[in-house]
Amino acid sequence: MISGISAAAGAPVRQASLRQHNLRLVLGQVASGAPLSRADIAAATGLTRATVSTLVDDLVSGRLLREVSPTPRGGAGRPGVGLVLNDADGPAGLGLEINVDYLAACVLDLAGAVRHREIRPGDRRGVEPSAVLAEAAALASRAALAAEDQGLTIAGTAMAVPGLVSPDGTIRLAPNLGWRDVDTSGFTPGPLTGPLTVENEANLAALGELFHGEPGLSSFLYVSGEIGIGAGIVLTGSLFRGARGWSGELGHVAVDPDGPACRCGAHGCLEQYAGQEALLPPGVSLADLVAAADRGERPALDRLTSAASALGVTIAGVINLLDVDTVVLGGVYAPLARWLSPGIEQQIASRVLTAGWSPVRVRPARLGSDAAVVGAAGAIIRAVHDEPAAWLLPASAGTP
Amino acid sequence: MISGISAAAGAPVRQASLRQHNLRLVLGQVASGAPLSRADIAAATGLTRATVSTLVDDLVSGRLLREVSPTPRGGAGRPGVGLVLNDADGPAGLGLEINVDYLAACVLDLAGAVRHREIRPGDRRGVEPSAVLAEAAALASRAALAAEDQGLTIAGTAMAVPGLVSPDGTIRLAPNLGWRDVDTSGFTPGPLTGPLTVENEANLAALGELFHGEPGLSSFLYVSGEIGIGAGIVLTGSLFRGARGWSGELGHVAVDPDGPACRCGAHGCLEQYAGQEALLPPGVSLADLVAAADRGERPALDRLTSAASALGVTIAGVINLLDVDTVVLGGVYAPLARWLSPGIEQQIASRVLTAGWSPVRVRPARLGSDAAVVGAAGAIIRAVHDEPAAWLLPASAGTP
Repeated sequence: MISGISAAAGAPVRQASLRQHNLRLVLGQVASGAPLSRADIAAATGLTRATVSTLVDDLVSGRLLREVSPTPRGGAGRPGVGLVLNDADGPAGLGLEINVDYLAACVLDLAGAVRHREIRPGDRRGVEPSAVLAEAAALASRAALAAEDQGLTIAGTAMAVPGLVSPDGTIRLAPNLGWRDVDTSGFTPGPLTGPLTVENEANLAALGELFHGEPGLSSFLYVSGEIGIGAGIVLTGSLFRGARGWSGELGHVAVDPDGPACRCGAHGCLEQYAGQEALLPPGVSLADLVAAADRGERPALDRLTSAASALGVTIAGVINLLDVDTVVLGGVYAPLARWLSPGIEQQIASRVLTAGWSPVRVRPARLGSDAAVVGAAGAIIRAVHDEPAAWLLPASAGTP
Repeated sequence: MISGISAAAGAPVRQASLRQHNLRLVLGQVASGAPLSRADIAAATGLTRATVSTLVDDLVSGRLLREVSPTPRGGAGRPGVGLVLNDADGPAGLGLEINVDYLAACVLDLAGAVRHREIRPGDRRGVEPSAVLAEAAALASRAALAAEDQGLTIAGTAMAVPGLVSPDGTIRLAPNLGWRDVDTSGFTPGPLTGPLTVENEANLAALGELFHGEPGLSSFLYVSGEIGIGAGIVLTGSLFRGARGWSGELGHVAVDPDGPACRCGAHGCLEQYAGQEALLPPGVSLADLVAAADRGERPALDRLTSAASALGVTIAGVINLLDVDTVVLGGVYAPLARWLSPGIEQQIASRVLTAGWSPVRVRPARLGSDAAVVGAAGAIIRAVHDEPAAWLLPASAGTP
C-alpha cells in the first residue's frame, strides 16, 4: 500500500485535494498536543514554512485555529506564536440521544471539552415518535443557544437512536421504542443546530470511547447494555458499520437456538439472557442491583452470573470472528462490570481459539451512560478535523 | 472523506507517491476491459496525454502492459495503439495450498488466467510439517518452471494453510493438521518462486471468489467447509483480517454452549455440528453423500438438515453483527449447497433483524475447491495491480 493515498482512489490527485489533505494535516498536528508554532508544524509535516503559513492563515481566519502568546521553549531559536485549536469562538458539535428511558443533549468544542449537557429521564416506550422528536428538538435548541452564549457555532448535530438507521436517516426499526420506519428527513432540531445526521447509539457510543475514553484504544468491541443490547465495532481507529450500515445487532445473536422467545420473533437471543429486563426484575433499579450485589445477595449475584455467561459465549463468538483485543462494557454493564467481567473472561478463555497467546481485555466504558451523546457530538467535531476545507468554505462565506 | 486521499494519511502528498498513484490508475483502466489507447486512458482518468504516455511507457518497459495492433473504433478520431495487460511475458502469481487432505499449486497471469495447476490428494494429518513443506516446495518449483516455460516471471508466492497465521508467517495453530507454532520464515519454496507470504485458506478462498468468482460480488461471508470450518469476510471489495489478522474462526463459534466437546477444548462449536466429520461418517465420501442425498435417502438428508440448521444459526449471528448481503458456501459446502441453502436461509429469515427489508443471498462458491489456491495466486497478481511501482523497480533493474 502506498502511504498517504488510498488504494481505492479512482481519481488523479489534483491541486484542490492536495490543499484539503494538507489543511487536515496541519490541523491534525495542532490537535495532537501542546501549542505549536508554524516552524514546529513545518518540521513535523515536511511541508515548507511558506506552505504551512498559508494553510495556518486559512485555518485561523476560518476559526479552526487560534493564536496564543508565544511561550519560551527549551530548544534553539526564537519562540514562534503558538497555535491551538479554537475552543473560544470556533465550531462545536451537538450530540443528541433518544433512548428508551431518557433523552440527552451535549455540546463539545473543537478541543473535545464538554461545554453543555442536559439529560431528561423518563420512559418513552409507546410515546408517539413525533412527540419524542419534538422533545429532542427542544433539548437541541437549548443546547445550541447555550453554545451561542459561549461564542461557539454548532457545525452540525448527530442524533443517537437505539435502532437500525438507513443511510437516508430513516429509523427502520427501534424494537424497544416500538418504532418502525420513522422518517427523520424532515426533522430539523432547531435554527442553530446545523445539518442533522442520525446514527445507531452503540456506534456513536463506541466512537465516544474511541475519542474520549481510554487513550490508545484502537480496536475494540463496545457492548451497549440498555433495554436492548447493541454493539459498536471499532477496528484500528475506525467505526465498522457493516456492508449496509446495520452492523452490531449483538442482542439478537443466538445464545441457545432453542431458548426463550424474543421480541424480534426468534428464539434464544442474547437480550433474553442479558438485557436489562433479564437483569432487573420489575421494581428493581440498577442502583438496587448494584447494592444487592455489593451485599453479596445470592439472587442478584445469580442473575449477574447467568448474564455474564451468556454475554461471554456471544462475545467469544465475536472475537473468534473479528479478532479484537478489547471488550468495552457500556450502558448498564459499565457499573456492573465488576461482577460481569470474570464470567465473560472465563468464556473467552475457554472458547476463543487464539486466547492462549493473544489476550483479550474486558473493561468498563470510561464515559458510562454518556458515551453515546458524547460520541455523537464528537463525531461532528471529528468530521471537522477530517475535512477542515468543508468547514472553511461556509464559515468564510458567512462571517466577516 | 476527501476523494482520492486516505483520511488516515499522515504524510504530505509528494511527487513520488503521485507517480505511484497514477501508475496504478493507468494500469487499473487497462485492467478494466477491452484494449485502450493512450487517448482513451487520458479521457477516462483526467490525466494529460503527455502524463499518460510517460506512465504507459514505464508500464510497457516494465512488462505490465503490452501493445496490440490498433483496432478500428466506432467513435471519432484515428485508432491508437491498443494496450492490454501483459499476459505474454509479464509477472505471474503462484498460489500454493496445504490442506488436510490435499496439496495444490496454481499459476495465474496478470490478466487472471490460470496457466498451470496441480493437485496432490492424500491425508496429511500427523505428517511432520517439514515433510509437508518439502512436498509443497516441490509442487511450487514445478509450477514456477511451468511458468518460466511460458515466458512468465513469478512475482511472488502465497501459501494457503488451514489455520491461524501470525503477521511474521508463523503458523500458530492449524488444529486439524495438528500443527502448532510452525515457523515458515526460513521456508523458500524454490529459486524461481519469489517472496513467500502465508495466509489462512478461508481468507485466500474469499479473495479467489472476489476476484475470479461472480462478477459484482463485493461484500460477503465466505464459509469454507473443509475438515474444519473457516470464514473469509470481504467488505466492499476488501478482505477483513481482524485487528490482529486472526478473524474468521467461524468453526469455533458456539451453536449450543452445552453441546458436544470440540477438539479446541470448548463445547458446542459449529465444527461439531457441520464440520466434514459430522457430515461424513467413517467410510462415506463426499461423492457418496451427494449420491445418497440425490436418491433422497433419509439418513443423508437428516445429516444435511442438521448441519444446515447449525450453519444457519451461526451465519445469522454473523449477519446480525456484520450486515453482509451474500453468503458464499465453499469447500465441501459448494457441492452440497442445494441441500444446505434452504435450512440456512430459514435461520437467516427468522433470526436476522434486518432480513425483512434487506435480503441475504446464499449461494455456492464459483471456484469450488480451487478457491483458496486460485485466491492465493490472485492475491499476488492483485498486489502487482495495487502497487505497480514496486514491481517496476526490480523488473527494470533485473532485465534488459
